[in-house]
Amino acid sequence: MSTIQTLKTKLPKAALLASMAALPFMQSCDMGDRATAQASMMSSDAASKVYVEPGKHDELYGFLSGGYNGQVSVYGIPSGRLLKIVPVFTQHAENGYGYSEESKAMLNTSFGNVPWDDLHHPKLSRTDGQTDGRWLFVNGNNTPRIARIDLSTFETVEILEIPNSAGNHCSPYPTNNTEYVVAGTRFSVPINTDGTPAEAGLDEYKEKFRASLSFIKVDKESGDMNLDFQIMMPGFDYDLANGGKGPSEDWIFFTTYNTEKAGTLKEAGASQNDKDFLAAVNWKLAEKYVKEGKAKEMPANYYHNKLDKNSHIAKSEVKKSVRFLDPADCPGMVYLIPVPKSPHGIDTDPSGEYMVVSGKLASVIPVHSFSKMQKAIKDKDFIGDVAGIPILRYESVLHAEVKEPGLGPLHTEFDGKGNAYTSMFVSSEVVKWSLKDFTVLDRIPVYYSVGHLVIPGGDTKDPYGKYLIAMNKITKDRYLPTGPELAHSAQLIDISGDKMKLLLDFPTVAEPHYAQVIHADKVAPRSVKFYELEKNSHPHAVKKESEARVERKGNVVRVYQTAIRSHMTPDNIEGIHVGDTVYFHVTNLEQDWDVPHGFAIMGATNAELLIMPGATQTLKWVPTRPGIFPMYCTDFCSALHQEMQGYVRVSPKGVNTPLKYYTGEQKPAL
Amino acid sequence: MSTIQTLKTKLPKAALLASMAALPFMQSCDMGDRATAQASMMSSDAASKVYVEPGKHDELYGFLSGGYNGQVSVYGIPSGRLLKIVPVFTQHAENGYGYSEESKAMLNTSFGNVPWDDLHHPKLSRTDGQTDGRWLFVNGNNTPRIARIDLSTFETVEILEIPNSAGNHCSPYPTNNTEYVVAGTRFSVPINTDGTPAEAGLDEYKEKFRASLSFIKVDKESGDMNLDFQIMMPGFDYDLANGGKGPSEDWIFFTTYNTEKAGTLKEAGASQNDKDFLAAVNWKLAEKYVKEGKAKEMPANYYHNKLDKNSHIAKSEVKKSVRFLDPADCPGMVYLIPVPKSPHGIDTDPSGEYMVVSGKLASVIPVHSFSKMQKAIKDKDFIGDVAGIPILRYESVLHAEVKEPGLGPLHTEFDGKGNAYTSMFVSSEVVKWSLKDFTVLDRIPVYYSVGHLVIPGGDTKDPYGKYLIAMNKITKDRYLPTGPELAHSAQLIDISGDKMKLLLDFPTVAEPHYAQVIHADKVAPRSVKFYELEKNSHPHAVKKESEARVERKGNVVRVYQTAIRSHMTPDNIEGIHVGDTVYFHVTNLEQDWDVPHGFAIMGATNAELLIMPGATQTLKWVPTRPGIFPMYCTDFCSALHQEMQGYVRVSPKGVNTPLKYYTGEQKPAL
Repeated sequence: MSTIQTLKTKLPKAALLASMAALPFMQSCDMGDRATAQASMMSSDAASKVYVEPGKHDELYGFLSGGYNGQVSVYGIPSGRLLKIVPVFTQHAENGYGYSEESKAMLNTSFGNVPWDDLHHPKLSRTDGQTDGRWLFVNGNNTPRIARIDLSTFETVEILEIPNSAGNHCSPYPTNNTEYVVAGTRFSVPINTDGTPAEAGLDEYKEKFRASLSFIKVDKESGDMNLDFQIMMPGFDYDLANGGKGPSEDWIFFTTYNTEKAGTLKEAGASQNDKDFLAAVNWKLAEKYVKEGKAKEMPANYYHNKLDKNSHIAKSEVKKSVRFLDPADCPGMVYLIPVPKSPHGIDTDPSGEYMVVSGKLASVIPVHSFSKMQKAIKDKDFIGDVAGIPILRYESVLHAEVKEPGLGPLHTEFDGKGNAYTSMFVSSEVVKWSLKDFTVLDRIPVYYSVGHLVIPGGDTKDPYGKYLIAMNKITKDRYLPTGPELAHSAQLIDISGDKMKLLLDFPTVAEPHYAQVIHADKVAPRSVKFYELEKNSHPHAVKKESEARVERKGNVVRVYQTAIRSHMTPDNIEGIHVGDTVYFHVTNLEQDWDVPHGFAIMGATNAELLIMPGATQTLKWVPTRPGIFPMYCTDFCSALHQEMQGYVRVSPKGVNTPLKYYTGEQKPAL
Repeated sequence: MSTIQTLKTKLPKAALLASMAALPFMQSCDMGDRATAQASMMSSDAASKVYVEPGKHDELYGFLSGGYNGQVSVYGIPSGRLLKIVPVFTQHAENGYGYSEESKAMLNTSFGNVPWDDLHHPKLSRTDGQTDGRWLFVNGNNTPRIARIDLSTFETVEILEIPNSAGNHCSPYPTNNTEYVVAGTRFSVPINTDGTPAEAGLDEYKEKFRASLSFIKVDKESGDMNLDFQIMMPGFDYDLANGGKGPSEDWIFFTTYNTEKAGTLKEAGASQNDKDFLAAVNWKLAEKYVKEGKAKEMPANYYHNKLDKNSHIAKSEVKKSVRFLDPADCPGMVYLIPVPKSPHGIDTDPSGEYMVVSGKLASVIPVHSFSKMQKAIKDKDFIGDVAGIPILRYESVLHAEVKEPGLGPLHTEFDGKGNAYTSMFVSSEVVKWSLKDFTVLDRIPVYYSVGHLVIPGGDTKDPYGKYLIAMNKITKDRYLPTGPELAHSAQLIDISGDKMKLLLDFPTVAEPHYAQVIHADKVAPRSVKFYELEKNSHPHAVKKESEARVERKGNVVRVYQTAIRSHMTPDNIEGIHVGDTVYFHVTNLEQDWDVPHGFAIMGATNAELLIMPGATQTLKWVPTRPGIFPMYCTDFCSALHQEMQGYVRVSPKGVNTPLKYYTGEQKPAL
């Protein structure tokens, strides 16, 4: 590590940028040294600590964001085994998500049906500041959206679009009882409160571009989201957020960068100022202002998509307005705290007293004090304001600075035992430091360029300080090579003792940014094994084979089909013609765990369906040529699964082949 | 296991079907017993045997089919870690596959652009009967296709549609020097050799439905595929295939079921006959007949899609005819061998003498002898024919029957040490038996309902008898629950000793059917780290920032953009109007390993791009409303990745905003 360590002192900006550019080279040069370093950091019984015996279960669920795959990956911890990919913002042909008639609406936005997004931050719902295992909230970064996953079914059940936002990055952070999840814009954009198209010249960036922070109310019982209000903010870039706890639980904090308002080449332009800001928002007070009628209404156009739990059909509602608060009219609601330039993570410790801000280009980690902040507010210890938002004095809010932590601090989590752990992107290490005296206690190299890190509950009042997972941005030689495109990589670290010990490298799907880790016993008992056929309220469900049928109205044909081991009913259909629109409404009649049936038909310009027991899913098919089209079950369901197949005859347009359907001799031709 | 074992004797068909239907119930009742059984089967040092120390590499690559996700999953063995998902037949928004302008054509078929398929069988290319690590061939089951993955880049480089086929299941099996890969239809369909639409009444199934086996020539140097000829076969269902070796290497074998030609309720209808057939095809002789002009030409319409390795652009060619052989005209080319009803796997042992056929409903595993088959052919020891194809006498070709192997045999692989291993779906076990005396030597329970199994090289002349992977169809309680939809599950078994020992359970992506496992040293050295920018022949590539630009022709706008840490050029674009068609041609200028850049623009009804170093990828965007649209790099590439962003201004139609683009001060506005 020596080469990297020598860079760890306070560097002028130019040198720091140069060191970052050179890093990949340094990493390769340095591999020998780093490997030696690693060996001494390994746990001697790592193999047995991560091995989960066949048939036994992992201790924890890890919910890792999929980043540019738009999904959530569920891992077993400590084994690092991928248990499931939950489709959220991205089409998932594997089970028909985003392709089936039921799920398509989930991806509706004001821009159209958007088949992809960039999912950065999963956050578990909380009760009394602790994860409760009910829901997982996640953000869509590209087309601003927040989604909710129900952890009883591991399904995305709700997606809410966020207006007046672009690059929905500092999202979705919950308050301590999930009263709200908040979302913030990363990119400032023109916002016209009269509803006219928000277009402006790019040379008007400094004057016309603004930002919004969104407060989404969460229903205590159902989890349903509702965009309660927005706060209009100066046109900075808002990067990350986190809520307070205990004394600070009425507050939520956002890091900002590009307070320079550089509209181009931000790489250099957004790194000019020595300090950017931490925006501190009193959400309780904001809520009060809204209740008092201080919010104004503006036209807006955004989608709210919900999955009905009985019919399993997603429906969109188009919202037409949003209310907003202007901080200049709302005294005491927002303050700006100077922080080292280009900050990334803001993390509050379990006590709620400390706000730790990681400045990507900073050589120290400032730890701000909530009580000092309150005093500074009371004392009006301001050094100025931005658009009516008071700026507090850095020194008055600062509690301590962690010195020489490493290069490129990004994120901090806590172990509940008085320690903090910060990821160092540039020097590729995790650094453990004390919340008592703010000195560095330990450091462990990671491979390579760690982004976020996570400790189970490490962002809550009640961390479980046994494991830490480092999610690394560069993989290179860590696994067998797979061509130019590599998996990202996570590392599991034992933090139960004084010294951190490396346990396991595990490759991850797409690009995990943040993650949440939770004890299995908070989630597993909620898990549903199948859907009750009795409760299936899908309008095209058939609950008995005897009700299976085919109906034609004009050129729309509906196949009311059932699937059960090992046949589908009907399995032979004639009388479909080129140009018809055919809907296969397939109901899986099974009522047992782990017996999905799949459905596919040859040549469909669509995905398959994967139908869970008790559910109905629909595939739309418009045949374009005559012929015989086999259909079959795509999920090996039984010894005679290969026999679970049938045919559809498609006749040329204009030829009158009568409608006829049957399965064996059970249902004679009509 | 006692409950299950008692069913292991020869059961009448009805009882056997009943036992299969009851199986999931039996499994749950039996879990206690099975757990005890498992404990005794565990390797005592399993943890250390599967643990791969951080930074060390797995010994083997495992290529598991993704089944209904249409992709290939690459696992490290023995760790069971998922190293990569290679998109093949299915859109993969994560890297833009099937969405980008370059890759879209890869999914073209005669039915249209098909965004999904069901991928069952990966097969590695072979030289002299051994895997050579060059290419991986895979089948698309639903819309008949064969794809080739290049193992130097882990990319799908070619997809060939198969005409006259439906349910392309017994595919793609290579000959010993990859002269051919073969593909066979699972579902019989009408085939009109005059090119008229092959439509028929479903009640004409027995008379009009036929099958084809396809022989795809593989270019020795480039790997390029070409559909050389088809053999027209009786209208059975063709299930699985495998080639001979050594003495039998001129032959390839296909299992058939539904020789009853039941067109409906195949679950029962296709299980009437006591015997179905193994079709033995002399491909060398077929090739000779084709060269002698015996093949007839018929009109056909199928797509052949190839990725150009320098431009990285996929292009489709539409083929208009195919030649075919009729076995009745080609003496000695095809024979039918009776086998127990409803066979699934056909596997030839490393010596090439034995053909092992697994009858799903059979109580024995018949082992046929190639030399006996040759003698029977020579002696014309036929018991009849089907459409001119001679049927050999079962007893004359049979070498031995493995007695009491278990219930529901599906597939067999070999360890190269004189042993065979067969998967038992119904009794959920792997059974090891001797190729010397054909007795059962060992059995190990698996969890639950194993489909395929794989041994590294276990289907070749040169198996590596250290590991076996069982790919199980039912998961239930094996991992932490994830709602109704569960991962499938694989089990790694140590077969290096006399007794099989269970090492590891690992969940798998979608539904692995078959897999290939190969020594890392046959693949890793070929792996390319990035694409050479110099060789990039994409017509819209820009290789220097100074060449980056935006051009308009009518309402088509092309952005010739570059990406390099940590900015894109241009990063500000004005003069785009609602209704324009905008192409972002993004070239990644990096020339280092593991530095992809991503590209996304807000609200695009498209996926992202993930651009490998040296490559160019294109996102098509048609803005539908005015506004400011941020674009950004989606793959955390550097410390200032968050600053790698820019804006596009979209003006209303009819407003004349002039074209203007820049990045910082490097490129002033034009």
